[in-house]
Amino acid sequence: MIKKLSIPAPYQGRVLRLLNELKDRSLSGILVSQPENRRYLSGFEPTDPQLNESSGFLIIGKGLAILGTDPRFEVEAQKEAKGYFPFIYRKGLESSWPEIKGLLKPIKKMAFESHSLNFYTFQKFKKLIRYQVNSLLFLPAYQLVEEIRAQKDRLEITAIRRALSITEEVFREVLKTLRPGKTEKEIAWQIKHWIHLKGGDGLAFEPIVASGPNAARPHAEPTEREIKKGEPILFDFGSKWKGYCSDLSRTVFFGRPTDRFKEVYSLVRQTQLQAEKGIGAGLTTAAADALARSVIEKEGYGKFFKHSLGHGVGLATHELPSLGPNSPNLLKPGMVVTIEPGIYLPGWGGVRLENMVLIQKKGAKVLNKDQSFYRF
Amino acid sequence: MIKKLSIPAPYQGRVLRLLNELKDRSLSGILVSQPENRRYLSGFEPTDPQLNESSGFLIIGKGLAILGTDPRFEVEAQKEAKGYFPFIYRKGLESSWPEIKGLLKPIKKMAFESHSLNFYTFQKFKKLIRYQVNSLLFLPAYQLVEEIRAQKDRLEITAIRRALSITEEVFREVLKTLRPGKTEKEIAWQIKHWIHLKGGDGLAFEPIVASGPNAARPHAEPTEREIKKGEPILFDFGSKWKGYCSDLSRTVFFGRPTDRFKEVYSLVRQTQLQAEKGIGAGLTTAAADALARSVIEKEGYGKFFKHSLGHGVGLATHELPSLGPNSPNLLKPGMVVTIEPGIYLPGWGGVRLENMVLIQKKGAKVLNKDQSFYRF
Repeated sequence: MIKKLSIPAPYQGRVLRLLNELKDRSLSGILVSQPENRRYLSGFEPTDPQLNESSGFLIIGKGLAILGTDPRFEVEAQKEAKGYFPFIYRKGLESSWPEIKGLLKPIKKMAFESHSLNFYTFQKFKKLIRYQVNSLLFLPAYQLVEEIRAQKDRLEITAIRRALSITEEVFREVLKTLRPGKTEKEIAWQIKHWIHLKGGDGLAFEPIVASGPNAARPHAEPTEREIKKGEPILFDFGSKWKGYCSDLSRTVFFGRPTDRFKEVYSLVRQTQLQAEKGIGAGLTTAAADALARSVIEKEGYGKFFKHSLGHGVGLATHELPSLGPNSPNLLKPGMVVTIEPGIYLPGWGGVRLENMVLIQKKGAKVLNKDQSFYRF
Repeated sequence: MIKKLSIPAPYQGRVLRLLNELKDRSLSGILVSQPENRRYLSGFEPTDPQLNESSGFLIIGKGLAILGTDPRFEVEAQKEAKGYFPFIYRKGLESSWPEIKGLLKPIKKMAFESHSLNFYTFQKFKKLIRYQVNSLLFLPAYQLVEEIRAQKDRLEITAIRRALSITEEVFREVLKTLRPGKTEKEIAWQIKHWIHLKGGDGLAFEPIVASGPNAARPHAEPTEREIKKGEPILFDFGSKWKGYCSDLSRTVFFGRPTDRFKEVYSLVRQTQLQAEKGIGAGLTTAAADALARSVIEKEGYGKFFKHSLGHGVGLATHELPSLGPNSPNLLKPGMVVTIEPGIYLPGWGGVRLENMVLIQKKGAKVLNKDQSFYRF
């Protein structure tokens, strides 16, 4: 068992915040299985390589911090998760469990991450934990650590800004080499190449490059389609830096913009500006979404704005808060969110413009340095 | 509601196989949430961009095939999942649910994928489905579709071979340009670049390039460490082709091999050959693992072989069957598995050699065309 004090900054502060949250909910411990939460609280970097494939978990309680992982990650566990008791399940999770049984005694009400644990693994842990202490309660907690993660500290904001700045540099390079006849896939590849050259430590997500009618699909995968003049091209991509993500969408028109493009683009940009101006701490996420949606609806394009206004960005590309019409959360200082209105017209194409903003006590600060938009 | 017959090949045959499996288990339907299973049964390609972020689900029963997805994937749903009834939940899953309520009437016992559905989503569906038919049962099914997927058809085997062949070409290119002073990260990047140039449609997983002591970590992430003479370098990477994965590990020694390297490498290679010779339909996966583990244990390296002998490969890099010491499944013709023994010595490095084999009625066929190994 490891005393809390031996966990180094910034993890110690985060664990203490979590312990307070648990106390407020009359919980005495939590099983953390969500990979970004694991890293956020311990520094343990291995990701989960596939859905349903876990690199490990944390168990955190008062005076207790365990990192469980299999032997493949033994070295990482010791090097990265300082202050955590390394539970390496050499004989498989079930057979090795008795090694930590004793440590768990003080935890009577253990939370688990209901949005992260699959039903099968939930049952496995439930059995193990019940075997351990008959009276123990195993209770679902929905996005408890995510709520803490939503408000970023200074270190995190610096990392996000750096990731976004790399992404903006990449976009400038990619624009320089756009030529008719290049395929969406080739351009997507160049984005990856530039992210590598500019020092990003990976992709926040697979780049979207969607030209012409493909831009009508908000999450289009790049195809072999060649870009040509007289069409919109929608870009959406992001670099990571030290684990933190960025997320940028821009739409350009190749050749001389048509009237329809001008109309749609201007409306999307105006919507974005309205949202950037109106958003800030104290607003609900649904109200933030409404700021934007009302502008688009007024012009009759409401049903073509097919997604939420935005989402939190941090260790994950999509994290809390979600800025959708039904999201009831409150915006708080330190949250970093995207503002990305979009209009998608089947058969023609689409326009999405996405910035990242830092929510402040009053209003919000746009984190994008590059503010070159068309003005029609 | 869509008749089964309107689902095109190869999906129709797969759906019929699934319906038979359901019947054998007295189930009348299944909710398919696992992304590769979704694609396997319907052709719907969108992946789940993050853990806990779903692009949709299938509901399959007798005479019933529904693809549920949100408006972002409306176009893909119609284009890719032919023969499926597209349920686009425009108002969110809960509010839109009444649109398919009626269709579900014939399903009295609905399975869900317990390894894929998180606890939170499980509860959400349980509520929706109970609301629909009070008497309906919602039952966990563990890797039911995965078991069907484990035995590949001819189309799938062709795609896997093509993916592996691209991966082998890439490895040859990368070997040509190894130079002291290159970092693991640079080499990992070149692997990605060559996969792109050789026509792979993406990475099966993030490449591993681990030099010297880093090779002692089976799942090392590439670092800024420079490769140098007198050390092993462990490679593990794979290209995709038409959605299908490949997986290749090789270890090379940079400079003149040391005696220790020769000893460890020869043992790993001998182990691999033994396993390739002994494996085949009718063997249990645990027995297959034992074929290899016994060779390594006899030489006293047992505790340094830190993972299973191998795993199935298909639409996912890691899928059924798992070839571990505790895996009780039976090997069947048409399964494609890796054979990848490894020895990892802390402080020194490691050796892993990985081939892919196709299980046949008698024995197995090695799918790797490139069989250049050191012979000491």
